[in-house]
Order: sequence, then C-alpha cells, then structure tokens
Amino acid sequence: MSLSRYPSTWKSLQQVKQAPFLFATRWGPQQRFVSVLSKTKTRTLGKTQGRVVILGSGWGGYQLLRKMNKKDYEVTVVSPRNYFVFTPLLAGTTVGTLEYRCITEPVRQYSKDIDYHQAYVESIDPEKQTIRCSSNLDDNRGQLFDLDYDKLVICVGAYSNTFGTKGVKEHGIFLKDISDAKKIRNRVLECFEYAAQPGVSPKEKAAKLHFAIVGGGPTGIEFSAELCDFISEDMSRLYPELVKDTRISVYDVAEHILCSFDAKLSEYATKKFTRRGIQIKTGIHVTEVGHDFLDSKEEGKVPCGMVVWNTGITANPLVETLDVAKDERSHRILTNDYLQVMDKSNNPYPNVYALGDCSTIQDNALPATAQVANQKALYLSKVLNDQIKGSGVVKPFSFRNLGAMAYIGKWQAVVDMSPVHKKAKEGGSLAWFFWRSSYLSMTVSFRNKMLIPMYWFLTYWTGRDVSKL
Amino acid sequence: MSLSRYPSTWKSLQQVKQAPFLFATRWGPQQRFVSVLSKTKTRTLGKTQGRVVILGSGWGGYQLLRKMNKKDYEVTVVSPRNYFVFTPLLAGTTVGTLEYRCITEPVRQYSKDIDYHQAYVESIDPEKQTIRCSSNLDDNRGQLFDLDYDKLVICVGAYSNTFGTKGVKEHGIFLKDISDAKKIRNRVLECFEYAAQPGVSPKEKAAKLHFAIVGGGPTGIEFSAELCDFISEDMSRLYPELVKDTRISVYDVAEHILCSFDAKLSEYATKKFTRRGIQIKTGIHVTEVGHDFLDSKEEGKVPCGMVVWNTGITANPLVETLDVAKDERSHRILTNDYLQVMDKSNNPYPNVYALGDCSTIQDNALPATAQVANQKALYLSKVLNDQIKGSGVVKPFSFRNLGAMAYIGKWQAVVDMSPVHKKAKEGGSLAWFFWRSSYLSMTVSFRNKMLIPMYWFLTYWTGRDVSKL
Repeated sequence: MSLSRYPSTWKSLQQVKQAPFLFATRWGPQQRFVSVLSKTKTRTLGKTQGRVVILGSGWGGYQLLRKMNKKDYEVTVVSPRNYFVFTPLLAGTTVGTLEYRCITEPVRQYSKDIDYHQAYVESIDPEKQTIRCSSNLDDNRGQLFDLDYDKLVICVGAYSNTFGTKGVKEHGIFLKDISDAKKIRNRVLECFEYAAQPGVSPKEKAAKLHFAIVGGGPTGIEFSAELCDFISEDMSRLYPELVKDTRISVYDVAEHILCSFDAKLSEYATKKFTRRGIQIKTGIHVTEVGHDFLDSKEEGKVPCGMVVWNTGITANPLVETLDVAKDERSHRILTNDYLQVMDKSNNPYPNVYALGDCSTIQDNALPATAQVANQKALYLSKVLNDQIKGSGVVKPFSFRNLGAMAYIGKWQAVVDMSPVHKKAKEGGSLAWFFWRSSYLSMTVSFRNKMLIPMYWFLTYWTGRDVSKL
Repeated sequence: MSLSRYPSTWKSLQQVKQAPFLFATRWGPQQRFVSVLSKTKTRTLGKTQGRVVILGSGWGGYQLLRKMNKKDYEVTVVSPRNYFVFTPLLAGTTVGTLEYRCITEPVRQYSKDIDYHQAYVESIDPEKQTIRCSSNLDDNRGQLFDLDYDKLVICVGAYSNTFGTKGVKEHGIFLKDISDAKKIRNRVLECFEYAAQPGVSPKEKAAKLHFAIVGGGPTGIEFSAELCDFISEDMSRLYPELVKDTRISVYDVAEHILCSFDAKLSEYATKKFTRRGIQIKTGIHVTEVGHDFLDSKEEGKVPCGMVVWNTGITANPLVETLDVAKDERSHRILTNDYLQVMDKSNNPYPNVYALGDCSTIQDNALPATAQVANQKALYLSKVLNDQIKGSGVVKPFSFRNLGAMAYIGKWQAVVDMSPVHKKAKEGGSLAWFFWRSSYLSMTVSFRNKMLIPMYWFLTYWTGRDVSKL
C-alpha cells in the first residue's frame, strides 16, 4: 500500500489546527505543544477525518472500534487475532460450561465499515506516522507491510508474567486467550483418559490427576472454581473410580487469595474452597514448572498433570521496543490524563494514544483490568468523535471504580461493590446471580446473548461436553 | 490389565454351548462349527455375559454401544477419538452453519456403564481372544496394552481414498472428522484474510480465493453448497471487494455429479450449482495436488487456495493387516450374512463381527454409508442382546434402502426416496425441509437436539461466526 494512496483534504489541516487548543487547556504554555504538533503531518488518509489505526482487538481496541464514528473516520484495526474475547467468562470455557465461540466477537463482523489486518505490529514511526506490521497468517507469516495513520491508538495488551520462573513458558498454561482455554480443556480430558488406561500405577494416577493453579487472583480463583465444578459434577459421574485420586491446589506467594477483594470476602471464598477439597497453599514460592511437576521453595517437587499460571502481567514485546515514556516499575506505556502517549521528555504526541493493559496514566496508576480498559476506550471514542464536531474543551480521563466480582464455584460468587456503596459486599448465591446477569448484560452481540444462557442451561441440564476435539 | 483379572463363571460355558445351535441353522453341518468354536475360550470377562469389545466410535460402534444390553454385557469401546460424529451434518460445520460440538456425542457421556480406551488397535488375536492397543494420548502415545474379549465387533471405518494421486495426503483436506472441518473453516478464513492484506497482487488474490473440491458425491456436493452459502451470505458482506475474485470448482472424473442419485435430481443439482456460479468440471482426471495448485490431465495446473478431497474410501490400516477373508476389490473385511468375520477359508469366527465402512457382506455388497452401518449395528445389537435370552434362531441381516438426501445450497436439497416409494424424488425447498427435519430427528442427545436448531436459527438471523479460533 503506497503512502500516496490517499489524497489530503482541507479537513485534515483544520483538524490539526484544533489540536493545540484542545490540549492547551491542561498542559499550559501552548508553545510547548507546537513543537510536537509541527511534526504531525497534515494529510488525511481516506474519509473526511483521516485514518484511525487501532492496534489490538482486546477490551480497549474492540470497545473503541464499536463506539468510533466510522462514517467520518477511516477505522483500521491491526491485531494478530481476528476476534475479541469477552474475558470475564473465559474461565468457564476451559471446562465447557460455555463454548469458546459464545464469548468471542469477530472484529470484521462488527461493522462492514472498517478495515482489518491480521498482523503483529513490529514498530511505530511517529514522525512519518506509519506503523510496520508483520503478517500473522500461515501462508505469509512475518511478511512485512506498512500502514499510514492520522491517529494511532495502542491497545496491544500485555503478556503473562512468569517472574522468570523456570519452565513456565514451556510447560505452564496461561489463561488469556481462547487457545489457552482449549489447551486446558483438552489437557484435563487427557489426564483423566490417561489415568483410566490399563497398566497405569496408582502413583501415576494421583500425579496425573493433580491440577495446580498458580496465582490466587480473580482469574486463578474463577478457573479453580470452574475446574472443581467440572470434576464434581461431570468427571465424577464419567470416571467414578478416579475421583478419589483427583486434587486441585491453588498456590500463591501472598498470604491470602483474592487479595484485591475485601478481607471478609477473601475469607469467605477460602472457606468455600477448603470445604470443596481445593487445597489453598498460600505463602508458597514456586521455583520451577516441569511437564509433570511443580517445584517450590517450601514444598519441593510435587507431581501434577497440569499447571495453570495466572500471576499477573508483563510488558508486551512491542511496548518494550517503543521509544516513549514508560512506567519505571511495570514498563507500561505512560500516558497523560488524555491517554496520549508521551515522548521521553514527557511531551505528548497529539495523535498517538494508548489504553488497556499496555499502558498506565502518569501519577494515576489503575489496575490492569477489563473495567479500566473499557472505560478508557469509551472516553477516547468520545474524545475522537467530538473532535469531528470541533467542540473545544476536553476533560481529562477519570476512572469510576464499579467494584469487582469473582465466581467461586457451586453457584456462588463474591461481589465487592464497595466503591459504589459501602455495604455492597456479598458472597453466595445472590452474588452469583448478580455475577451472571451483569456479565450477560455486558456481552456484545445478539448471537452471544442467545448462546450464553443456552449453554448455561444445557450445562445445568445435561452436563458439560467431554469430546476432546 | 492381566488376563486373569476376571474369573470364569458357569454362564460363559452355557453361552458358548448355545452358539453352535445359533449358527447351525444356516451353515449346515454342525460339525464344521465345532472346530471353530473349540477355539473360543470358555471364560467370561466381567458381568454375566462376558466382555464385548467394540472397536471404533463411528456410526457402527456408537449405535451398537447405545443399543447393547450393558447390564449383562461388560461393554468396552476402543477408539482413537473419544466421541461420535453425526457425519450427515459435518459439511455444515466447515463454514459455521453449525458448530463442531453440536454434532458430536462423547462416548463416555452416553452411559456410565461402559469402559472406554482412547487408542488405536494394532492387532487382533482371535485364538487368544485378545487385542493389542496403542494409546492415542499425548503423554503415552504408542504405549501398548492388551485387552481380552469374549465378543469382538470391528467397526473401525475406512480412510479416504486418494487413488495414489500425488500430494493429496500432504496438501489436500479430507472431510471425515471434526479436525478436517476445523482445517477447512480456518483455511477459508485464512485465504480471505490473505487476499485482504496490503501488497497482494490481483493474480495472487484470485489464486488464493479459488476453492477446489474433488469428488462430486454427496459429501463433496454438500460441502460445495455450504461453502457457496458462506461466501454469498457472509463473506460477501464482510469482504465486499473480494467476492468478484472468489471461485468454487467441483472436479469429478465421472460425467455427472451425484451419480448415485436419480438422473433428474443430479441434473437439477447441476443446474442450481451452475446458476450460483459454481464451476462443475466433470470428466476431469486430477493428477496432482500442491499447496497452492491442482493439476489435471485435461486442464493442467490451476492455482487454488484450498483443495478438499472427497473421492471415496480405502481400507483402514488395521484391516489391511488382518489375516481374514477380504473383498478382493475393496479390501474390506468380508463377513457372512450374520456379520461374522470369516477366516481365509470362509469359516466364520463365532465371536468376531465386523460392520460399517471397514466391512462388506459376501455376495451382498452394500454402499459404505452411514445408513448401512446404522442398520447393521441395530441388527447386531439385537443378535447379541437376544443371545442372553437364549432365543434360538437368528435371521440373517437384510438391508432396507431408505433412500438418499443431499443439501445443494440456498435452502434447497435433493431427496431420492425411490426405494421406498417410486415417486418420492424431490429437489428444492420442500426437500430441504425434509432433509433438515429428518437429520434433526436422527441426532442423539437432548443437548444437540436443542443446539442444532439454535445454531440454524442464529445462522439465518445473525450470519456465521468468522472468528479464526
């Protein structure tokens, strides 16, 4: 695609001229921005307002895509996967409570008025306003191509953090994408089938049927709960002789699980887990993960059939290579309150934004959650859409904490809405009902709004599907 | 599992004593059977009637499993995959008209009263009444173990026939299992994404978007129809600029497609296909398949993005190694009218049966279809269940042809029920309605009876999902 494909129009100039005024309201001496803005090319790539390139199709990218004005902006998404995953329900797909496809939304299906490229981004050139992409298709993987942008939004997410623990990348399974959920589902079925084959010793059986989860945050806990449901409701019926050998252990270096929740709710979840036979091993430092074992400072080598690793996030490789301001501790892209990416001297690029797990706001660190990414995407879509109307003043982004929820198994959940209302802390079946209904209401397409309750009903009524596809 | 695990009981003797009487009714001189029967061990492996081992979980194996008396027989299934596929609806899953899991039934889920091993069968020893299995699990693939049987049913199916055509195994995609459907679905999406990437020449686009189907039988035709629906209903909306470059070609060495159908119906299908822009290339001898081309004697090298190969079946490797009577032409296991496998001198083994695509009846060749496998399985389950009651005379198997159906796209099908009623030949929307309702009624579980119409409705209402998972 040649750089000269799109003719520049008068509107682009108009738009860039507005910019200093937009941002000057907060960052004082207008002069400071002119130097940065002078670098911004005054061209428009397609449609009247130029091309907005969104990097990533996670919570940030997909929500932004949905809310963007696609009539006036030419919107292009670049992402290595062609769909969005509704991550709050991902844990349920690892055991078939839900099917994979009922929590995904194809990027292209959302609107025929967008462009999409299945590729990774290798580098960004803010001077030339181009990005270099490398194809993520089987037939031309790694093939490079360039794209121009007028505005760029970086929401490439983050990678799972192994804290350098040996063997995690090779043998552990993360829980960030559908491919991970598939691996887990097939692995659990594999372990049970293995244990059921003739000639397998009791010791081998117990080893294969020990499932270890590292990380007691919401994702790890929800997955443990779903796995426990799966084993107690389905596998115990299909492999009655194996259930006595089955164990689930949750490891965490902290003293409690669900640290981010109210202490009472964390305690409630711990009690429920313990009652269901899930071993909670807090204060444990895992030192190595192997194909069939987990090693820790406190307990030594423990055999297991699967290790699921959920201990937080680390910078995305693209973010590592970017020559912009970054948070020292987390290495995330540092943005100002308007979500603009800043150069090393903390001068914002007027047309490059970052949101989601790959970025954080200067002096206003927020957790790397879907909720934050979602709110930032809604904010930015409003900012970008308002730029068309030419409305002057832009308010900085402010986060409204709506609380947190986690499923803890057996139709029970913990919901901590204390930021909204002091007393809104609940654990149990009512919380579970709230958990299900709020997530269902948040899913995007009509298709999934139909499918998700259907699968919930079928899981309740007929059990989970155990075909190893 | 040691051979001596199961004590013999008096019932086993009783059961074997009945056998000569059962079979003598047809094969005259009783003496002839005594020699064979004397080889049959008089042990019983579990439960009162001994162990029935079913090899395979296709139409034959799964139907037999369903109908077998599992109270008195110990039923064990050995199959490399842990589920049954409802093959008549497989073509629809290649493009997402239906989801993969709504046409599968897990073997274990059917009954908790069975044993199952995920393994291939390497060899059968009818003297010792044992089979040697090799595990098909990731962690101990190829690990051998032996199983004993009292009665053995071979329904291991067949492999796709490439007729030795170069490159088909490496580059062609068959359409026999869910894994094939997945490959096709991802491949089509890959081809479209490739063609949409920057820098792809018009020639490359046209090559990548040419989909070739070799074989104009019902499977090939149904797949072509589903693919055409997918492209005209979904891809044309999502990739409007690419549809003009998209082509579907159906190749067959015969002069007509759907040869097994009535000539008028075949003609009707041809006309409908041609009208929708599907190129029907009959009388073509394909000589080679490559990663991105198809070579034929008549047309030379034609570039294409995908080749789907559906030209019939060939013997399963297990069947090839068996030292039993086989059909000379098709190399399938030859059975008598009671579905008993015969040794090279055509003496039947009284306790070894074969059915489905891997076998054929002596002097009564039937097509390798789900319908035949299904009826044979029903017959055999009745025979085996009746043996418990000790009812004497067994009727030979007889096939009742119920006709054939095929979907031809755009809510139309061809139905040829002429074996049932002379005038029952229909092509069009009424046939399509009949096609859908009969297959829906034939699906097995409540789960799938709910899911299939749900997905049909969602496909109609919201289009197919294009997430490349």
